Amino acid sequence: MTDVVPWLETEQTPFLLIDQQRFLTNVERLQKHISALGCHLRPHLKTLRSVDAARYILPTLSSPATVSTLAEAEAFADAGYTNLLYAVGISANKLDRVRALLERGVQLHILLDSIAQAQVVIDYGRKHGVSFSVFIEIDCDDHRGGLPPHSPLIGHIAQVLHDNGMRVTGVMSHSGGSYDATTTAEIVHAAEQECAAIRQAAAQIRQLGMDCPILSVGSTPTAHFAEDLSNITEVRAGVYTTFDLVMYNLGVCTLNDIAMSVVTTVIGHNADKNWVLVDAGWMALSRDRGTASQHKDFGYGLVCDKNGIPLENVCVTKVNQEHGVIALPNDYTVQDFPIGTQLRVLPNHACATAAMHQHYVVETTQHQREIWPRILGW
Amino acid sequence: MTDVVPWLETEQTPFLLIDQQRFLTNVERLQKHISALGCHLRPHLKTLRSVDAARYILPTLSSPATVSTLAEAEAFADAGYTNLLYAVGISANKLDRVRALLERGVQLHILLDSIAQAQVVIDYGRKHGVSFSVFIEIDCDDHRGGLPPHSPLIGHIAQVLHDNGMRVTGVMSHSGGSYDATTTAEIVHAAEQECAAIRQAAAQIRQLGMDCPILSVGSTPTAHFAEDLSNITEVRAGVYTTFDLVMYNLGVCTLNDIAMSVVTTVIGHNADKNWVLVDAGWMALSRDRGTASQHKDFGYGLVCDKNGIPLENVCVTKVNQEHGVIALPNDYTVQDFPIGTQLRVLPNHACATAAMHQHYVVETTQHQREIWPRILGW
Repeated sequence: MTDVVPWLETEQTPFLLIDQQRFLTNVERLQKHISALGCHLRPHLKTLRSVDAARYILPTLSSPATVSTLAEAEAFADAGYTNLLYAVGISANKLDRVRALLERGVQLHILLDSIAQAQVVIDYGRKHGVSFSVFIEIDCDDHRGGLPPHSPLIGHIAQVLHDNGMRVTGVMSHSGGSYDATTTAEIVHAAEQECAAIRQAAAQIRQLGMDCPILSVGSTPTAHFAEDLSNITEVRAGVYTTFDLVMYNLGVCTLNDIAMSVVTTVIGHNADKNWVLVDAGWMALSRDRGTASQHKDFGYGLVCDKNGIPLENVCVTKVNQEHGVIALPNDYTVQDFPIGTQLRVLPNHACATAAMHQHYVVETTQHQREIWPRILGW
Repeated sequence: MTDVVPWLETEQTPFLLIDQQRFLTNVERLQKHISALGCHLRPHLKTLRSVDAARYILPTLSSPATVSTLAEAEAFADAGYTNLLYAVGISANKLDRVRALLERGVQLHILLDSIAQAQVVIDYGRKHGVSFSVFIEIDCDDHRGGLPPHSPLIGHIAQVLHDNGMRVTGVMSHSGGSYDATTTAEIVHAAEQECAAIRQAAAQIRQLGMDCPILSVGSTPTAHFAEDLSNITEVRAGVYTTFDLVMYNLGVCTLNDIAMSVVTTVIGHNADKNWVLVDAGWMALSRDRGTASQHKDFGYGLVCDKNGIPLENVCVTKVNQEHGVIALPNDYTVQDFPIGTQLRVLPNHACATAAMHQHYVVETTQHQREIWPRILGW
């Protein structure tokens, strides 16, 4: 165990720390797994929303990537990235910005799952002389949006788009249901289910004589447990670069793989209650309680010592805006955590915790300090 | 009912909207109530963290105010404000920035509740020739930090500070427990309790021959229901300027007083489930579920039409990062919410929702558009 690097001890708390070595290991792990299955990654960049992180996640500027907002698409386009899927259902008010990106030479794919949206896209495309590249969203597990894979609407929408000069580039599904798995067998099954759904949807479009070149599946759990990606062209995953406690509970990673923590300082005690107060509240940790419904509930995060070593059963149990309360288990007393002590908190949900920060402090593989700014807003 | 102003319909969603007229009415309401009780406000600026908002909340640049981070203190100091209480327990790593503010002429008061913190402050003050102005935190309801009002440590800490050249400016408590009230009688009782606690704490210090000029109490519920503020010098409250659904459930405001909403666009339907999908997920609404434990659970927020008229029992029931799901009650179908429809969502907890945005879109009293930037980070 090495001691914490000196610059970390004087950084103003709270702040979000990324362990670059773990981050790179996580990136490589999924890259290798998906390559071995003969498939490609289209990483979802929404977790960190960082151009600096994308440098390591994406092999080249033309590598496929996924974004959750047009703000990300614009910022990654500014950084030179050219192949982006905006994976949230499109609406009319977003099309001016999509068009502006297309006119800059970015291949920006949009997503929809209804005739109403297809018509909006067609009308806009006709008015402005634009041919949009469209993915149709497929619902593989009755989880959120998308059309069921057997729905005849899939072929109908594709046909209408195609007949009106739009390109039906692909079908995509997100196995959000895999987050509710309680065994790895269930994740393996979810992976099979999303592939089956997306193959069925693509077949329907191809039977009508259209190409539909991209079959896109993904979620971090299913990406790691997928065993057969035949006929699937790409896999999307986001949180795998840093992982978090939800992924740990799902068996996708170990605690030592988690590359993100919030560094905080002890600012008070309540000895009667055996409570330690820290300067990381929900503003730094987020309000996410993703582990609440899993087999191990980590409250608002698992507490580690200043070197990042997890303290068993020590969790942030309550949060206010700028206060975190650690109700200690019986084998600790507040004297174990003197005021001024630096601690780290592993996040329930890396996307939600990262979203509370405007930049990340990165401990590089050489233990140097780097700052990675986050792309903000919509 | 007036129609939505045209510029609002073309603004990119999601965004946070502030109704300036309601905001001003809320500000004036509490101002009058506290003045009528012979007391002063020290508004907590942590909800909006906005210099533009502070212009209306604070009568003058020297009016007392409360902040939750040094980033706020620095930004409000830059804007000319000179009397700020940093109401989170102090730690050694923050004192350089506190000193820098003092040297700029800002009266920045710090907060502590232990001998260990007092000693850190004294040591730092001696080393750098600084006399800090200190508030001692009092726990009025066994809720978070602070010393019980009868604790002899209060007098002891005050004496140690005083004997070592620091100024014991005040005692403060926060009635966080009032958020759990189920009747207004309970809020009235919580208000009495925090005043009693703070009077008792101040008496202990004064009996030792020290001044302790400021007796500070506060929370938005207790501030509105306080009946007797005799001997109390100031009241702190934060969320009262915009209110939210938690405050509505507590009976502190009506739905029509809520001055903050997130404007969103319908981006999908799931007719089988009677679900409407919108482009506001937890990234725009926050993960706060503050109404979950109250008598009326609003999910992730109460949905209003594009003019801001609440739709009874229509709530955002599920959120992902950039998706909100509205599971409609039986008296609505998805056809009532065509794709592209603009809606507004009232927040559970205004502080948490505002924290997800980098700026706010303000509809002024004249229905013009203003942008109020938010102070970010720590």
